[in-house]
Amino acid sequence: MQTSAAISADGKHWFLLEASPDIRWQIESFAALGPPAGSRGTSIDGVLLTNADLDHVLGLWSLREGGPLRIHATAAVWNSLVHGLGMDRILGFFGGSRWLEAPWEPHALSLSGGEPSGLLYSAFPLPGKAPRYVEARPGAAGDNIGYRIEDPRTGGRIVFAPDIGAVDDTLREELAQCDVAFLDGTFWTDGELEELGGRSAALMAHLPLGGPEGSLAALPRGQKPRRIFVHINNSNPMLREDSPERAELVRSGAEVGIDGQELEL
Amino acid sequence: MQTSAAISADGKHWFLLEASPDIRWQIESFAALGPPAGSRGTSIDGVLLTNADLDHVLGLWSLREGGPLRIHATAAVWNSLVHGLGMDRILGFFGGSRWLEAPWEPHALSLSGGEPSGLLYSAFPLPGKAPRYVEARPGAAGDNIGYRIEDPRTGGRIVFAPDIGAVDDTLREELAQCDVAFLDGTFWTDGELEELGGRSAALMAHLPLGGPEGSLAALPRGQKPRRIFVHINNSNPMLREDSPERAELVRSGAEVGIDGQELEL
Repeated sequence: MQTSAAISADGKHWFLLEASPDIRWQIESFAALGPPAGSRGTSIDGVLLTNADLDHVLGLWSLREGGPLRIHATAAVWNSLVHGLGMDRILGFFGGSRWLEAPWEPHALSLSGGEPSGLLYSAFPLPGKAPRYVEARPGAAGDNIGYRIEDPRTGGRIVFAPDIGAVDDTLREELAQCDVAFLDGTFWTDGELEELGGRSAALMAHLPLGGPEGSLAALPRGQKPRRIFVHINNSNPMLREDSPERAELVRSGAEVGIDGQELEL
Repeated sequence: MQTSAAISADGKHWFLLEASPDIRWQIESFAALGPPAGSRGTSIDGVLLTNADLDHVLGLWSLREGGPLRIHATAAVWNSLVHGLGMDRILGFFGGSRWLEAPWEPHALSLSGGEPSGLLYSAFPLPGKAPRYVEARPGAAGDNIGYRIEDPRTGGRIVFAPDIGAVDDTLREELAQCDVAFLDGTFWTDGELEELGGRSAALMAHLPLGGPEGSLAALPRGQKPRRIFVHINNSNPMLREDSPERAELVRSGAEVGIDGQELEL
């Protein structure tokens, strides 16, 4: 399945990380996200977006029914959705939408009723780019971010960064302080998609994993954080369990994300 | 899965009927739609749309890579896509799109290279309405249609009509001349979604199946055409195999469409 995840402090109120095109399928595959008994509603309180790429936001249309859809995003991402896709206008014909600006400092992630969810969240900037459908405008700070999410009761902390254009000090610092990191596993080499008629990883602002300049070499190794690569393109050879690339990944102590994977921190 | 189907005269070149949000999943579940060997391409030559409802068109975004996406639709439907969703503009940043006006008289369904696909197709008007995201404009002829598709070599003919606002003479005539009809199975009663907080079937321009005024009573019975109900909302009680509604449907000689169903005419 594509790159969405769900987080919760209490197992009852959930937030989606990205809304991929197959979101309805993903929701149906995880019972906790279904409607509370006797309702057609949802246990999903909002969606956190890291950028405005179509593969992260198309699922918003599939969440259009019900109350206003709470969309957590930077100003740059919301700007892309509004001016590039008409997202707020179109959702306005259904349940509506509400933009909540993703905070740069840790902040309580609130539920729609105003109560705290039990989670803290903050955004941090990541090298990346605006989506192709707003290519005409210059890149803006906040076009691509990662999230830090923490449960202060347990101290458990994750980083969610499925799109990484380059490894910088900000990312290194975030990784040094988290338990589990979900990281950009799109490509193994810069040219693997070009060979199949696509664009290079660099042009798409994805740092590939492989090689001396790749993210596997640039990212910290060791037991902590647990590194789980997600957002894996079907051209990436590490998807094959018997590939040398997979062996290299496993030797480095990292993991390939699995559909349906559940973690408790 | 949602309401998409694929048709082909030769088993190599395929046309989608609707592009539902889960289209990528559906494509992956049917090997014939995958890329020809050694390519990242597709065996899908185009998409035929019956209306511009989001559940029929969101999958177009998921088909954005590759060459121009060939979209067969009426002028009214294309107008909704362009002015309501910015479809042509957004697809233009990827592989592009090409609109092909759905013909009101039987016409050869051509492949992108210009050769005949081996199929004939024609649209016929059906009572319905424009999608909610263009509600401001008055309804237009062609907002909702059915397709007749025929293989002249075998004489096999289907009707595809997943949205039926009312049964009229045009529909009855089409059904009298086809072998298999895929029909609007959205609701059993007008109020079943209202009870769950949604809108009435009438407001959504779906004729429900049940009751003396329902489509099951209004549509022809008998061995021909084979009637397969699709586009079934999860509120429709006929989805449950042990329901009285399912029993009534089966007694009438009709069927519930099944994910992955294949037919050869």
